Amino acid sequence: MNQKIPRYEDILIACNKIKDYVHQTPVLQSGSINKLLGCDLFFKCENFQKVGAFKFRGACNAVFSLSEEQAKNGVATHSSGNHAAALALAAKLRGIPSYIVMPENSPEIKKKAVKGYRAEITYCKPTLEARESELEKIVKKTGAAFIHPYDNFQVISGQGTAAKELVEKYPSLDTVIAPVGGGGLLSGTATWVKSYNNEIEVIAAEPEKADDAYRSFKSGILQPSLNPDTIADGLLTSLSEMTFSIIREKVDDIITVSEETIVKAMRIIWERMKIIIEPSSAVALGAVMEKPDRFANKKVGIILSGGNVDLKKLPF
Amino acid sequence: MNQKIPRYEDILIACNKIKDYVHQTPVLQSGSINKLLGCDLFFKCENFQKVGAFKFRGACNAVFSLSEEQAKNGVATHSSGNHAAALALAAKLRGIPSYIVMPENSPEIKKKAVKGYRAEITYCKPTLEARESELEKIVKKTGAAFIHPYDNFQVISGQGTAAKELVEKYPSLDTVIAPVGGGGLLSGTATWVKSYNNEIEVIAAEPEKADDAYRSFKSGILQPSLNPDTIADGLLTSLSEMTFSIIREKVDDIITVSEETIVKAMRIIWERMKIIIEPSSAVALGAVMEKPDRFANKKVGIILSGGNVDLKKLPF
Repeated sequence: MNQKIPRYEDILIACNKIKDYVHQTPVLQSGSINKLLGCDLFFKCENFQKVGAFKFRGACNAVFSLSEEQAKNGVATHSSGNHAAALALAAKLRGIPSYIVMPENSPEIKKKAVKGYRAEITYCKPTLEARESELEKIVKKTGAAFIHPYDNFQVISGQGTAAKELVEKYPSLDTVIAPVGGGGLLSGTATWVKSYNNEIEVIAAEPEKADDAYRSFKSGILQPSLNPDTIADGLLTSLSEMTFSIIREKVDDIITVSEETIVKAMRIIWERMKIIIEPSSAVALGAVMEKPDRFANKKVGIILSGGNVDLKKLPF
Repeated sequence: MNQKIPRYEDILIACNKIKDYVHQTPVLQSGSINKLLGCDLFFKCENFQKVGAFKFRGACNAVFSLSEEQAKNGVATHSSGNHAAALALAAKLRGIPSYIVMPENSPEIKKKAVKGYRAEITYCKPTLEARESELEKIVKKTGAAFIHPYDNFQVISGQGTAAKELVEKYPSLDTVIAPVGGGGLLSGTATWVKSYNNEIEVIAAEPEKADDAYRSFKSGILQPSLNPDTIADGLLTSLSEMTFSIIREKVDDIITVSEETIVKAMRIIWERMKIIIEPSSAVALGAVMEKPDRFANKKVGIILSGGNVDLKKLPF
């Protein structure tokens, strides 16, 4: 692994670059959830971020880090949803075109959002192979710059800015928990938190039924995702070499969460906090619910990654 | 009408009395909803209030305004939901018992909440007569003080504190819109806003299918509620002599909102703002959607009254 990986300074640079475009999202607390779980939780609300997810931070940093020359033919990506919308909006803000390959089974609300930002969408079969081959064709045709959803230095640096805001506001946190899919959010989070204060524990939360990061972390060898099947549709992807190398080095542990607990966590947040989060976001609180003793009386930061749900398809 | 009605000073006193118990709820804005409707909206988020509704302000002020002697046998009320939970929690905080008469068809989530605050619940048929006669029996038996959901000086004074927080934060608002059911929130809002700055317009929003306040306001004679039938289950009640007298004097207009627009407004807030509001709260934004020209380019404060919805019975 000689690939260059983001450092603390890169997250500072990202923060400065995107600050006029992203929301500094609020951190909320819930007395009733704290009482229920016996710890002190600080929810970083990226569901209130533009496009409804943290993904806008990374996409924005990637788009605004391109040189004029690199940006002139626009940007392209494949994504099942939030990264697609994020990239489309970032491109619109920079005034360049965006080309998005989306699996045909992506949630309606996410398709609608991407269209709303005037991206050119190509639908494909819901496999990584189909996504990659469609994307290759488009990049070849248009000359657009490919912005990977997570295997990208600038994307990871941008995602780290959410944890920066959280921990600078609450420096006495014992633990920060982020969900893990491809590992972009988790890598950025761990990079920033561990440089800021190595004493703060960084824990990943992953669906039991999409546990490639857990298996990779425990075995020390990058494992592929095997038929992932979880309601947390943002966490179906596998780690990349880059995100795995960061996670191995900087993350303290990965906790897997059952589907039942994911839905329960989502419901608790909806009912007690009156905010809308998507299932992928609920996985982080789910980790606390799976291991309450481990977090008893601790101050725990939870990154709520997004709030884009199809209201016609709720799990309640 | 020789009944004493709340003034500006009474709301200041209420504010001081309840400040250690209530949340100073946030005021949120949404760039995308502003763009959609062509005005500048400021949402006062009482859905984040304790018990999930503004009702806690009034109940809290009423309970903590009782003398030791008046409070010693506890408090009682009849309510379909939010006032019940609010009174139960306020009583619990003061350490006195609460007795609640609830219609048997009240939403499950509201029954659960009231039980959670250790109130003694009596269920009754869903008519005003049944509610009142059950309550009378309980008051007779226990000696508890009856706290009416809205026809109560201290309750109205407490409800006015939400508008106080909103307008003190954004003094340049052109208009404040509150939903109207029994008129407690609207009376408190109008009392405070009009004394603070008579130039700020106060508008009520009411479901078309529960339009007794509209008919009363337009005719100048208190009209009963006739078979109200709306998804906005917090707005089924009729004005009282007291709330009607305040509303006649201080409210600028009442706008009625169709069921279709209520659901649309609710959905827009859920999808764009990622927060959970109940249908009664959506009526206020619905008023803007019914009359967009009237609010074009104006700064409009919207009181989002509560966020208690049964997730199994969503209208989407």
